[in-house]
Amino acid sequence: MVKKVGIIGLGTVGEATLESIKRYCLLVEKRTSLKIKVEKICDICPEKKKLGDLFSLPFTTDPYEIINDPHIDIVVELIGGINPAKEYLIHSLKKGKDVVTANKALLAAWGEQLFEVAGKYKRAIGCEASVGGAIPLIKSISQGLVGCEVEKLYGILNGTTNYILYKMHKEGTTFSLALKQAQEKGFAEKKPDLDIEGKDTLHKLCILTYLCFGVWPPLKSLYVEGISQISPLDITYAEELNYRIKLLAVAKREKDGLDLRVHPTLINKDHPLAEVPLVFNAIWVEAEPSGELLFFGKGAGGTPTSSAIISDIVSVSFNNVRFIPTQEKIAIKSINDLRTRYYIRFMAVDKPGVLAEISKILASYNISIASVTQKERGKERFVPIVMITHEAKEADLKKAVVKIDKLPVIKPPSQLIRIESL
Amino acid sequence: MVKKVGIIGLGTVGEATLESIKRYCLLVEKRTSLKIKVEKICDICPEKKKLGDLFSLPFTTDPYEIINDPHIDIVVELIGGINPAKEYLIHSLKKGKDVVTANKALLAAWGEQLFEVAGKYKRAIGCEASVGGAIPLIKSISQGLVGCEVEKLYGILNGTTNYILYKMHKEGTTFSLALKQAQEKGFAEKKPDLDIEGKDTLHKLCILTYLCFGVWPPLKSLYVEGISQISPLDITYAEELNYRIKLLAVAKREKDGLDLRVHPTLINKDHPLAEVPLVFNAIWVEAEPSGELLFFGKGAGGTPTSSAIISDIVSVSFNNVRFIPTQEKIAIKSINDLRTRYYIRFMAVDKPGVLAEISKILASYNISIASVTQKERGKERFVPIVMITHEAKEADLKKAVVKIDKLPVIKPPSQLIRIESL
Repeated sequence: MVKKVGIIGLGTVGEATLESIKRYCLLVEKRTSLKIKVEKICDICPEKKKLGDLFSLPFTTDPYEIINDPHIDIVVELIGGINPAKEYLIHSLKKGKDVVTANKALLAAWGEQLFEVAGKYKRAIGCEASVGGAIPLIKSISQGLVGCEVEKLYGILNGTTNYILYKMHKEGTTFSLALKQAQEKGFAEKKPDLDIEGKDTLHKLCILTYLCFGVWPPLKSLYVEGISQISPLDITYAEELNYRIKLLAVAKREKDGLDLRVHPTLINKDHPLAEVPLVFNAIWVEAEPSGELLFFGKGAGGTPTSSAIISDIVSVSFNNVRFIPTQEKIAIKSINDLRTRYYIRFMAVDKPGVLAEISKILASYNISIASVTQKERGKERFVPIVMITHEAKEADLKKAVVKIDKLPVIKPPSQLIRIESL
Repeated sequence: MVKKVGIIGLGTVGEATLESIKRYCLLVEKRTSLKIKVEKICDICPEKKKLGDLFSLPFTTDPYEIINDPHIDIVVELIGGINPAKEYLIHSLKKGKDVVTANKALLAAWGEQLFEVAGKYKRAIGCEASVGGAIPLIKSISQGLVGCEVEKLYGILNGTTNYILYKMHKEGTTFSLALKQAQEKGFAEKKPDLDIEGKDTLHKLCILTYLCFGVWPPLKSLYVEGISQISPLDITYAEELNYRIKLLAVAKREKDGLDLRVHPTLINKDHPLAEVPLVFNAIWVEAEPSGELLFFGKGAGGTPTSSAIISDIVSVSFNNVRFIPTQEKIAIKSINDLRTRYYIRFMAVDKPGVLAEISKILASYNISIASVTQKERGKERFVPIVMITHEAKEADLKKAVVKIDKLPVIKPPSQLIRIESL
C-alpha cells in the first residue's frame, strides 16, 4: 500500500519529520508493507524551498496546493497555532484526507469540532505528537487502556518548565536565571509565556481529558498557574519537607465531576515523577483494572516528535485511529471547591506573636496546620514561615491568606502551592 | 459490531478477565461501538463450573467446544504452558478465529510458527498480556515505535524476582527469606524456578526481540542466569559503589549482531530502573528517532493483566494487530563475546599478597581493575574482596576467575555480576 503525504509547516518538527521519513521509510515498509511517499511540502516562508531542494520534493508556499491535491491521502499539519491551522485541517478532512497534527493549542480549543468533522467525513485525526512528544501516550490511552476507567492522571507535559524547575532544584538558581539558561540552550522560546505560564500544559491536559473521559473541557474555565512565582526559597523548603516542586497537569475523576487543573505542585520526592530530569516528560496514570502506569520520554524536539508523526501516518493509513464519541456530560469542578493540602510560605516580621496571629486567622477558616517551619534569620526584616496544612478547601484558604496578607507584620503576597499525595 | 469470545483457562487471569469484561464492556462499547460478548468458558477442572454459574455463561471442560464453535470470533487462551496451548491456538487460527494469549512460554518457543499460521489464515494474535502485564508495551513498540530503530532495551520483566531483590535491598534479608516472604504474599509460586532462574524473563525477551528486531531468537541458545546466587553481601557492596542489582533482560543491536541476555545486573542507582519497587515491571528503551523511553506498571496479577486482554480483544476486532514479517537474518551474539564491566566478589584469606596474586591473574587475561574494595574483617577466615573491572571480554574474565578460584587462598565460587552503563 502506498500513502501520499503532504506536509504543511517546515519548522523544527517539519524538517525533522522529512529527515526521519527519508531515513526510516524502508523500515516502516518492511514492517507494515506501507510505503510512505511525501508528495509535496509547504511553508509560507519562501526560503524553506531549500528543504524542497534538499529532499528533492515539490515545494509550495500555498497550503491549498496540498489540501486540494487529489493525489494526497494524508495532510500533516505542523504550523502550530489556531489560525489558519484550523481551516487547513477542516478543509483537508472535507477533501477526504486523513490528517496528522502536533497542534495542541488547536485541539484544546477546537478539538470537539474537528473530531466531529472527521467523524462526519469518516476520516481520522492522528494527534500522537500533540502530547508527550515521542511517548506513545495517545495510543497507550486510547488503545491500551480502552477497557480501563482512568481515575487519576498526573502529567509533566512541558519540557521547558521541567527544565527550569530541575535546574532551580539542582543548582539553586533563581527562576529568571534558569529561564535564561533554558533560552540559551534552545529549550525555551524567546517569548516563553505559553510554556512558563502553564498554558501549553493546559492544552495537553485538554487532549488527555478527551481521551480519558470522553469530554472536551471548556479551556477558558480551567485553572492554570505557571511557575514564574516559584522562588529558590520554596524549592529549598520543599526539599527539607521531603517534597519536590513540579508543574503538573492534574486530572481526577471524582463523584461530583472532573477535577482538572495545572499548577506547580509539591509531590513526595520519592515518587517517580519527582525524579523526571531536564526536558523529559512523564505521565502517571491510575486506572482500573490496569493499576498504576508511568510513561516517560522526550516531550519535545523535532527528532523525537517525528517518531510520533510517523506512527500516526501509519495508524491513520490502517484506520487504527478511531473517533472517540464524547460521553454524557460530566461536570468540571471549580478550583474553589478543591480540597487538598497546601504549602504556604509567609514572609513575616520576626517577632513574638506573629505565628499566633496567622494561626488564629487560619483556624477561623477551618484550616488546620500539619507542620510549621520557621528558621531564625535575624538580619532580615521579613523571615519565611512555612506551613503545611491538613486538607482544606481552596476557597477558605484563599480567603484566609488574603486576610493574613493584610496584617502589618506580613509582606505580601504569601506563596501558596498545592500538594498532591501521589 | 459484536464479537463473540471464548475463554480457555479460568485461573487467576481467566477469572479476572471475566470480571473485568463484565465490569467494563459497556465502557468499551461506548468508546468503540464494539460489543464484547463472552459466549463460552472452558477449564479442564470441572470445579470451575462455578464461574459459569457466577457469570451466567455456558461452561465446558472441552476446549474444542470453543475452538470448533462457528459462532465464536475470538479465542482467549489463558492456560499457559506449551502443550496443549499450542494446538489450541493453531486450531483456532485455522478455524478462522483471532486469538488472544498471555502465554509467553509458548510464544518464546513457537512464536515464529504461530505467527506464520496466523499470517497464512489472515488472522491476528494479540499478545499484549504476555509481556509487562498491564503496561501497553506491545502496542507501544509495534505501533508507537513503528518508525523507530530500537538500539537498546533493558527490561525488569518479572515481578517475583524484582520483589525479592527489592526486599533484599530494603531489608537486608537473604535470598531464601525474601523468596519465602514472596511466596507467603502470593507473589511467588510454590515452584518458583521459572521466575527466579530468569526463564520467564527470557521468554518475554524473546517476544520483545521479535517486536523490536523482527527476529525470533533461538530460545535455547540464549544466556540466562537467575538471582538465587545473589547474597546480601553483593547487595550491600553494590549499594556502596552506587549501584543496585536488578534482574534485567538486555537487548542491544550491535554491528556484529544482537546482544540478548538475562542476568542480574548492576545498574547505576540513580537510573529510573534502579528504583522500580515491589512486583512492578519497567522497560527502558533507547531508539531512534524517539530517544529514551520508559514504561512502568504492574507486570502481573489477574486484574491488571485483564486490562491488556481486553485491549487485545478490541485490537484484533478492529484488525489493529498486524503480522510483523521476520526480517533478514541477524546474528545472535554469544555471551562469550560480550564486552562489559564486571563486579567480582572474591572470598579470600585475609593476608598480605592475596590481592597481588588475584591482580596478576586478571592482568594476564588483559583485565584491568577500576576499583577494589577490601574491608578489614579480622574474625572470618575468608573476607570479601570486591573489584569493579574496566570493560573486559566475558570469555577472558571467566577463564581468569576459574584460575583464581583454584588458588588456595580463595574460597570458590567467586561471584561475578555484569554491569550495564545506563
